[in-house]
Amino acid sequence: MIWSRLLKGLGRIDDVELNRKHIDRIYDSFMPNDVYIGLEGFFKKNFDELSKAKNIKEFLWIIGKMLPEKNESILKTAYRNKIPIFCPAISDSAIGLMIWGQMLKGKKMMLGHFDDLNDIIELSWSSKKTGVIYVGGGVPKNYIQQALQFSKSASYAVQISTDIPQYGGSSGADLKEGISWGKLSKNAMYVNVICDATIALPLIYAAVKERF
Amino acid sequence: MIWSRLLKGLGRIDDVELNRKHIDRIYDSFMPNDVYIGLEGFFKKNFDELSKAKNIKEFLWIIGKMLPEKNESILKTAYRNKIPIFCPAISDSAIGLMIWGQMLKGKKMMLGHFDDLNDIIELSWSSKKTGVIYVGGGVPKNYIQQALQFSKSASYAVQISTDIPQYGGSSGADLKEGISWGKLSKNAMYVNVICDATIALPLIYAAVKERF
Amino acid sequence: MIWSRLLKGLGRIDDVELNRKHIDRIYDSFMPNDVYIGLEGFFKKNFDELSKAKNIKEFLWIIGKMLPEKNESILKTAYRNKIPIFCPAISDSAIGLMIWGQMLKGKKMMLGHFDDLNDIIELSWSSKKTGVIYVGGGVPKNYIQQALQFSKSASYAVQISTDIPQYGGSSGADLKEGISWGKLSKNAMYVNVICDATIALPLIYAAVKERF
Amino acid sequence: MIWSRLLKGLGRIDDVELNRKHIDRIYDSFMPNDVYIGLEGFFKKNFDELSKAKNIKEFLWIIGKMLPEKNESILKTAYRNKIPIFCPAISDSAIGLMIWGQMLKGKKMMLGHFDDLNDIIELSWSSKKTGVIYVGGGVPKNYIQQALQFSKSASYAVQISTDIPQYGGSSGADLKEGISWGKLSKNAMYVNVICDATIALPLIYAAVKERF
Repeated sequence: MIWSRLLKGLGRIDDVELNRKHIDRIYDSFMPNDVYIGLEGFFKKNFDELSKAKNIKEFLWIIGKMLPEKNESILKTAYRNKIPIFCPAISDSAIGLMIWGQMLKGKKMMLGHFDDLNDIIELSWSSKKTGVIYVGGGVPKNYIQQALQFSKSASYAVQISTDIPQYGGSSGADLKEGISWGKLSKNAMYVNVICDATIALPLIYAAVKERF
Repeated sequence: MIWSRLLKGLGRIDDVELNRKHIDRIYDSFMPNDVYIGLEGFFKKNFDELSKAKNIKEFLWIIGKMLPEKNESILKTAYRNKIPIFCPAISDSAIGLMIWGQMLKGKKMMLGHFDDLNDIIELSWSSKKTGVIYVGGGVPKNYIQQALQFSKSASYAVQISTDIPQYGGSSGADLKEGISWGKLSKNAMYVNVICDATIALPLIYAAVKERF
Repeated sequence: MIWSRLLKGLGRIDDVELNRKHIDRIYDSFMPNDVYIGLEGFFKKNFDELSKAKNIKEFLWIIGKMLPEKNESILKTAYRNKIPIFCPAISDSAIGLMIWGQMLKGKKMMLGHFDDLNDIIELSWSSKKTGVIYVGGGVPKNYIQQALQFSKSASYAVQISTDIPQYGGSSGADLKEGISWGKLSKNAMYVNVICDATIALPLIYAAVKERF
Repeated sequence: MIWSRLLKGLGRIDDVELNRKHIDRIYDSFMPNDVYIGLEGFFKKNFDELSKAKNIKEFLWIIGKMLPEKNESILKTAYRNKIPIFCPAISDSAIGLMIWGQMLKGKKMMLGHFDDLNDIIELSWSSKKTGVIYVGGGVPKNYIQQALQFSKSASYAVQISTDIPQYGGSSGADLKEGISWGKLSKNAMYVNVICDATIALPLIYAAVKERF
């Protein structure tokens, strides 16, 4: 939806000029600001349906359901295959802003804040073995880590990040650290990949594909 | 509450041994896992009061209110001075886990997901001028950035982060990029500090204190 | 010579144990310390021939010449194709140590310190256009940069490094900075690649090969 | 000599404009290119004296000796206190370029390439205990490391660097790795500081000063 109009360019550019032209820069990618108009239209039109969701997972599936049949986005693919997407920080996004916009006009939406936490921990408990692939750090990594802590420690783990352990944050923490917490099994197989995920992930995917 | 029992040590250590001793490692800091017992007691005892909160900001003030008068934590200080704390990803935390634990036992809590977004944007709109200090990146940085985008662009900005623009993420993005989005004024004064915030922030604080 | 006996392993390992087994660790690569014995033998046997070199470039070609015909090392390939290798910090290497060892026994070698500088500047002056590919930073990058400063600025430049401009050193300096010095042409085409060169270089090589 | 005319500014600047004004940029420092004129004069005038040096250590002491009595530079201070400065990559510097310039005019200078290696290894052998402080990586770090390998392993080590072990290079290598090589004692006290040295070094200096 939003990203289909994203353009690639160079990072060294005049941001004042871009602002005048209503182009939003994301390092070396460029997005016309009017994507927000289409986004707003979508949320205005579909808000009643969307607000039937009781939690974030359901909310994201409803968006996936609404997308055209041939759409190949993550949300459509997840909906089609009933793969849950947990997104605890959804209010920190363009989607969050759109919901805020509708609520300003008096619309209501009430998503269960802690339902996802329930689902992700259940998912881990009910699995025979757990394995994780972290693409980057931040909230997504930590959210999975704490689910593992309170369910079943991971037997397999891959982490792709440009952050490093020495700064002490969760994003860069070595997977091994998780052994102390019970997030990672003491016999787990794991590897920390310190690399931009847009470089490392396709290489890993190609290597896996070659073998199977 | 939790951190008072945190110990400093060395990062190079046997995590299997730590796990056996119920010590959780955070790089070179060590936390006895039983802090969760105290935390659980607190939430069990106070859940009814806490669940009166209608949104995250109120919820965090209620915790602050409950803390002992002499407590010098961030939550107590913020409550005392009526400084709002916005925390969109609260379910991704030990607090989130404690609430989940209480809900498993049938307790209810319903925090307005998008109220904070409303408050933070209002705060920016109603200010004569806006300025930001980002300590690290992640959700906190982006949440403030999107509030600025939909209100008043910042006239002053400081960013302390170990992440860099070239990986393309929000955490490492140069403040200047915000000019294209309208998050930063085109005449803003700003500086990107690429350093561990635990080193840079005290130095900045000391320099500011020396001058005023 | 030296690297043929290098083994790959894991970085998390007991260095005291390795020391006892006479294995030298280079992050996740392992080298039996007795490679130095073979190296010492080579230098002992060939020192008279090697000491005929008047400068470092000649010295490295003589080693290349001595290597077996089928050898595919960089030194052999460079000798075969008469490609000069400039190595201003040669005393900071295993080769340097071997020469020092021979000199302790009274042998003599006198390499012109500044001849390479002469050659590399000449090479740039006599080229119609200059282009550079920096794989990593350090002395090699700066040595080429200063040659460009005193001859012909580069029209093309690629830099692959994990270092970044913000720390202020030469290794991480943005290529663009070279325009101020006259090291890079103001109309040059250039790109800074912030990535481990062992990942980025093969990808670039494959992409170039695919196109030609 | 050179640095006294260095100015501080901002990294975001037009390098083409700087080039036109003959200002050389080093990230956010700016140097008028005509410092090279003063440098050239110095070398032209003093070359006969300088060329009496038999190796790099002597050469640097002679420069130190020539500097005005009140000069507080590193070279003057080192000369005054007879502290050897080992600089294996001296041809990779403005000094190297100046010597090259004089040699173009037929002057001669012959510095023993491997004498410093001899001196630094001797220094380590003759010490009761060895300790090292690496400020940054590159040739200086490795040159000291290989001296330790062939003499007495370090009992104390501090490393300040922004580079990290995971990229596999010498600059970022964890000090612990040196235990396998015999560069660091297995009972050594050591610490790796991952921080810009211009931030960390003054803090360490202040902390040491406070204690003694």
